[in-house]
Amino acid sequence: MTLQTHRLALIGFGVVGQAVAEVIRRKHTHLEKTHGLNLQITAVSDLLKGAVYHPEGLDLAALLKAVQSTGNLADYPGHPGLIRGWDSLTTIRQSNANTIIEVSYTDVKTGQPAIDHCRAAFSNSKNVVMSNKGPVALAYQELSALAKENGARWGFESTVMSGTPALRMPQTCLVGNNITEVSGIFNGTTNYILTKMEEGLTYEAALQQAQELGYAEADPTADVEGFDAQGKVVILANVVMGAPLRKEDVPCRGISRLTPADIDRAKAEGKRWKLIGWAKKENGRVTAGVGPEMLPLTDPLAGIMGPTNAITCHTDLIGPVTLVGAGAGGSPTAAGILADIINICC
Amino acid sequence: MTLQTHRLALIGFGVVGQAVAEVIRRKHTHLEKTHGLNLQITAVSDLLKGAVYHPEGLDLAALLKAVQSTGNLADYPGHPGLIRGWDSLTTIRQSNANTIIEVSYTDVKTGQPAIDHCRAAFSNSKNVVMSNKGPVALAYQELSALAKENGARWGFESTVMSGTPALRMPQTCLVGNNITEVSGIFNGTTNYILTKMEEGLTYEAALQQAQELGYAEADPTADVEGFDAQGKVVILANVVMGAPLRKEDVPCRGISRLTPADIDRAKAEGKRWKLIGWAKKENGRVTAGVGPEMLPLTDPLAGIMGPTNAITCHTDLIGPVTLVGAGAGGSPTAAGILADIINICC
Repeated sequence: MTLQTHRLALIGFGVVGQAVAEVIRRKHTHLEKTHGLNLQITAVSDLLKGAVYHPEGLDLAALLKAVQSTGNLADYPGHPGLIRGWDSLTTIRQSNANTIIEVSYTDVKTGQPAIDHCRAAFSNSKNVVMSNKGPVALAYQELSALAKENGARWGFESTVMSGTPALRMPQTCLVGNNITEVSGIFNGTTNYILTKMEEGLTYEAALQQAQELGYAEADPTADVEGFDAQGKVVILANVVMGAPLRKEDVPCRGISRLTPADIDRAKAEGKRWKLIGWAKKENGRVTAGVGPEMLPLTDPLAGIMGPTNAITCHTDLIGPVTLVGAGAGGSPTAAGILADIINICC
Repeated sequence: MTLQTHRLALIGFGVVGQAVAEVIRRKHTHLEKTHGLNLQITAVSDLLKGAVYHPEGLDLAALLKAVQSTGNLADYPGHPGLIRGWDSLTTIRQSNANTIIEVSYTDVKTGQPAIDHCRAAFSNSKNVVMSNKGPVALAYQELSALAKENGARWGFESTVMSGTPALRMPQTCLVGNNITEVSGIFNGTTNYILTKMEEGLTYEAALQQAQELGYAEADPTADVEGFDAQGKVVILANVVMGAPLRKEDVPCRGISRLTPADIDRAKAEGKRWKLIGWAKKENGRVTAGVGPEMLPLTDPLAGIMGPTNAITCHTDLIGPVTLVGAGAGGSPTAAGILADIINICC
C-alpha cells in the first residue's frame, strides 16, 4: 500500500478539537497500516487558546499536553519553522492543510464564523470537515455549490447524532430504497429531561439535573425549545431527502411547557413523550417539523432513554430501519470527523 | 450521465428471486436516472420452475406473470433468440450476465449447490450477489480469495438481517473505529416465539403460531436450535471483525428448552430472554457464540420484539451503535441484493 500524506488544520481547539487530535495521535499507526493514510495536523488556531503552525506537522502529544496543563498553546515548544498567532482565516488560507477541521465556537443563529471559514476554505480548494451544524443548516445550498465549483469536499457526519452515522448510513447503505420519511430523537438533553420527568421530576428539576451533568447549557433555550433538533432536521431534509428546506420551513415546538400531568396522561395511555424531529415525502413534496409526541411503547423510538439519539428511516423496500447511538461527546464527534476524513482521502 | 448496461442472471426464482425481478422492474427508470444504471435480467434458471435466457434481456412483467399464474416459466412468451432449459451451471457459464444473483434453494449444512454456483461464477470472472448464507458461512475464505483472483466481486448484504445493512453499516460507516464486539438478534423466528412466550404461550404453542404465520418452517430445527444465527455470527466474525472463524468455532444453544418458568424468572428480575449471537475481540483474539440470554430491559436489544432483527456494534470511539430492521422477507432481501448490485456497478 502506498502511503498518502494528508494535512489537517484544526480551527477551534475545545473539547471536540482536542478529541480529534487525541484520536489521530492514538490511531496514527493503525491508519497508516489499514488505510495507507499518514494524517498530519499542521495547524491549530483557536480564538482564545492561541495558534501554532508548522508545515511539517505538529507534535500532537506536546500540543495536548500544552493545552491540558495551561489552557492555551503558549507552552507548545518552539522549534525552527514554527509560526505562532495565525488567526482562523489566515490559517485556512495560508497553511498547507488539505482539509480544514472546523470545530470552532459558532453562533447557532448566524452560523458564524463557521460559514465564513467554509467560504474561505472552499474558495482555496480546501476540503472542510465539521461538527458545527450552523453552516449546513443555514447555508447548505450555497456552500455545497461553492465546494463543488472548487473541487473541494465537505464532510459533516458529526452534525447529526455526532459519530453515529445518521447521514452516511441512509445515503450509502440504503441505496436503492426510496426513503419516504426520517424521524428521530436528535437532541440528547431534552431526551434526558423527558426520561427524568417520567421518573417523577418536574421539568425545572430535570433541567437543573441536566445542567449539573453538563448535558444542558446555562442557557438551555436551543435544546429545550427544539432549535437544535430543528437544525438537524433541516440537514436531514437537504442531505438525505434531497429537499432544499430552510429553518423557517420547519415548524418547531420544544418541551418546556410539558407538565407532570402531561407525563401522567402518556403513562395512562401506555405511551411516552419524545421530542421528535421528522421530514416526510408525500406526493413528491417534503414537509418537516419538530415537536413533542406521545409514542406507543412499541415504537422503536420510545425505548431510547437518557442522552442517546436515534433515527428511523422509513423505506419502500425494507420498511423502517432504525439507528441508535451517542448523540454528543468529544470522542463520538471525533469519530464522525475521522470517518469524513477517511472518506475524503480513500 | 452516461448509461451503463449491467446484465443479471437469477439462479432461483422463488420468493426472493421474484422480489428481485419485481423491484428491478419497478425501479428501472429510477435507477437509470439516479445511478446511470440500466439493469437487465437476461437469464432465469430455477430447478423446478424452468429456465429462460435471452441475451438482450427478458421481459420482467411477462416473466412475473408467467410464474405467478402457472408456477413455472413454460408460458413465458417465445421470441427469436430465446433459449429455454439451461440449468444453473450452464446459465452461470454461458449467459452474458455480468453478475449472478444466487437465490436458489440451498442446503444449510453443505452450502450446496450455492457454493458450486459461486465457484463457477468467479472462475468465469462473473460477480455474485446472494442472500444464501451457506457459502459465506461455510466457505468465506476460499470463495473471497477465488473472487479476488479472478477480478470478480461478491456481495452478500442480505445474508445477515436481509436488506437491513448489518454488514455494510459497520464496514463503511464506522470506518476509523475499532469494533470490539458485535452482538444481536439475528433470527426473527425465535424472537417471535420468545415474544409470544412472554405473552403467556408455551414454547410449543408459540412455535405452532410461528409456523402458521410462515415465520417458522415445518422443520424448525435450524431456527430454534440457533444454527441460523450461528451462520450469521460466522459471517459477521469474518467480514466485520476480520477473524477467520468457522461454524465449529461458534458454540451454539437454541431456545427449545426454555420453559414458562424461565420466562417468569426473567420477568421477576426485570429482564427478558433473547437469542443472542455475538463475536468479541479480546487481546487480539475473536471468540463467538449463540445462546439465549436474559437481558435487562434497558439493553437496546431487549426492546426488539416479534420478527424484527437488530445488531449492536461496540466501538472504541462512539460506544454502542445499534441498527434495527427487518430480518427477512422478499422485499427487504431484494433491497440488500439491489444495494450490492449498485455497489458493484457504481
